[in-house]
Amino acid sequence: MTVNATRPILRVLDGEAVWPPPVWMMRQAGRYLPEYRALRAEAGSFLDLCYNPDLATEVTLQPIRRFGFDAAIIFSDILVVPHALGVDVRFAEGEGPRLSPTTSTEDLARLAPVLPLDRLSPVFEALRRVRAALPPETALLGFCGAPWTVASYMIAGKGTPDQAPARTLAYRNPDLMRALIDRLVEASIAYLVEQVEAGADAVQIFESFGAALPPALFGPLSLEPIGRIVAGLKARKPDARVIVFIRGIGGQAAHLSRTWPGDAMALDWSLDLARTLPGLPGTLPTQGNLDPLALVAGGEALDRGVDAVLAATRGRPHIFNLGHGIVPETPIAHVERMVERVRAG
Amino acid sequence: MTVNATRPILRVLDGEAVWPPPVWMMRQAGRYLPEYRALRAEAGSFLDLCYNPDLATEVTLQPIRRFGFDAAIIFSDILVVPHALGVDVRFAEGEGPRLSPTTSTEDLARLAPVLPLDRLSPVFEALRRVRAALPPETALLGFCGAPWTVASYMIAGKGTPDQAPARTLAYRNPDLMRALIDRLVEASIAYLVEQVEAGADAVQIFESFGAALPPALFGPLSLEPIGRIVAGLKARKPDARVIVFIRGIGGQAAHLSRTWPGDAMALDWSLDLARTLPGLPGTLPTQGNLDPLALVAGGEALDRGVDAVLAATRGRPHIFNLGHGIVPETPIAHVERMVERVRAG
Repeated sequence: MTVNATRPILRVLDGEAVWPPPVWMMRQAGRYLPEYRALRAEAGSFLDLCYNPDLATEVTLQPIRRFGFDAAIIFSDILVVPHALGVDVRFAEGEGPRLSPTTSTEDLARLAPVLPLDRLSPVFEALRRVRAALPPETALLGFCGAPWTVASYMIAGKGTPDQAPARTLAYRNPDLMRALIDRLVEASIAYLVEQVEAGADAVQIFESFGAALPPALFGPLSLEPIGRIVAGLKARKPDARVIVFIRGIGGQAAHLSRTWPGDAMALDWSLDLARTLPGLPGTLPTQGNLDPLALVAGGEALDRGVDAVLAATRGRPHIFNLGHGIVPETPIAHVERMVERVRAG
Repeated sequence: MTVNATRPILRVLDGEAVWPPPVWMMRQAGRYLPEYRALRAEAGSFLDLCYNPDLATEVTLQPIRRFGFDAAIIFSDILVVPHALGVDVRFAEGEGPRLSPTTSTEDLARLAPVLPLDRLSPVFEALRRVRAALPPETALLGFCGAPWTVASYMIAGKGTPDQAPARTLAYRNPDLMRALIDRLVEASIAYLVEQVEAGADAVQIFESFGAALPPALFGPLSLEPIGRIVAGLKARKPDARVIVFIRGIGGQAAHLSRTWPGDAMALDWSLDLARTLPGLPGTLPTQGNLDPLALVAGGEALDRGVDAVLAATRGRPHIFNLGHGIVPETPIAHVERMVERVRAG
């Protein structure tokens, strides 16, 4: 047995029904933590924080120190990939990201053909430092955005309801869309390989926006590109595990689980685990899915939400998590209560 | 056979597989039409337009004259119900609606206990005038928003990503949420009864935001209240048909179809009809689901999208529609092409 395989999250990702389930939270390094807000105030822009190995290391470790989560996830953003490719990316407070739009063959031609890994070296440096500082039983996760989600930001230059600009482009100019997705697939493989090289035990691929794709586009623009990233990563890093989170798959989970492109399926808060999990292969690890707003509310809503996840996942390989990122308004005491309740099984 | 039953949409709603399928479009009276924009410019505020029987009648009829759709849907907005209950509602151009928030027992107590139907009399007057002007084979549809969707606007005072404020309130103050939903159920029944009284053959209930509800809340806040509206309407108007549109049910369609709260199930554009429909009762009428952005794009994307809906629904009781409202950028010629292709079967 390798050292890695003693980490509870990795045991789950290898198919073991660890109990009580290991636990971490999407966006666990973030604004709900006073120590994050203090450090954030000093850091300049959001991207400055992502690209500063000292600060990114510190921010990544903060929730581990406070809650003893079973995984640290490197503090970064899915938009560092387009940024490294040459897109202008800014994060204005309270506005969400703003990017120079990529909507033509000429725009695409201006981007780097191959991901310039040196532009992302601070991320890899932070991964190495976090790994060195983590307790041995704590897994370290890398991540990237799925190509469709990243492309939808690149095309619109920002987040948009139902990704309308990207969907329209997909209909109007399928060749350009395919070329952009291909560029992102290759860049994501290179990025994830290097994250694993720097110490990530596993990676999560975030498809925040799969749900708005019509059926004719969901396969070619979401599922297949994710599958190519997983295959490309594993061709070079056979031991890397991949958690794939496609938000909004809802009742399609069972159908998709038969050809799921990763080692584990992360589920959003809208899924009924008690009804969904019996339809999935018992060997497919899952992750999720407490409603982040039940964590904000606390009290009975929180307890009932935690208990529902525990009851539905007992006996299965499952990683306890939220069904979406933790929100800034979340009281620390509610997170403590959640972790305590999960660890009590 | 009544006159009503000769209207193709009503034949479908009664379970007949009419071919080619009747067709209308959600938001068919709207900004993509130059004649709408011309009239809109004269009308003052958006609510002024909704509450002006002359103008609302004219706007409702515009798409019928141009495209000969099989149904007219009364021009109005789901927020006229909270407005009539006493909520301050404004539509600022390019901003979406803004409402005085309802977040406490005191706020709720300030609203009318029973829907003041007289405040909505211009809507009923417009329905009567539209009915009188419509060709006999054209159905007239009324509508309202589902309680959860309307409540989510009332609580946040505006549209919000994933309805976070309303979801948080549902966890923190379930009694208040229930009371608000109950108020909207009763108001919606009264409103729909009066719409049918004024000439609507059928009504559609719009649940735009069901998808973000966690499983423990979806039943009590979305499905059951809609069911109570349908039952309340039919208790007083047994001949009224109800189309229920819950956006984002995705792979849950088959499961939900067994206890669907309306006469017909409207499906959004993300659903794969070819895979979904075989799992539904063959007697359950469906409606949908062309991606409105395929209609914007036109060309092959449009033709393929139309053909996919036709191929999947042949032999079933189905009403051709978009999978969401038509968007302002849609070229008129694309709508003409869509209607022509649908009518060619």
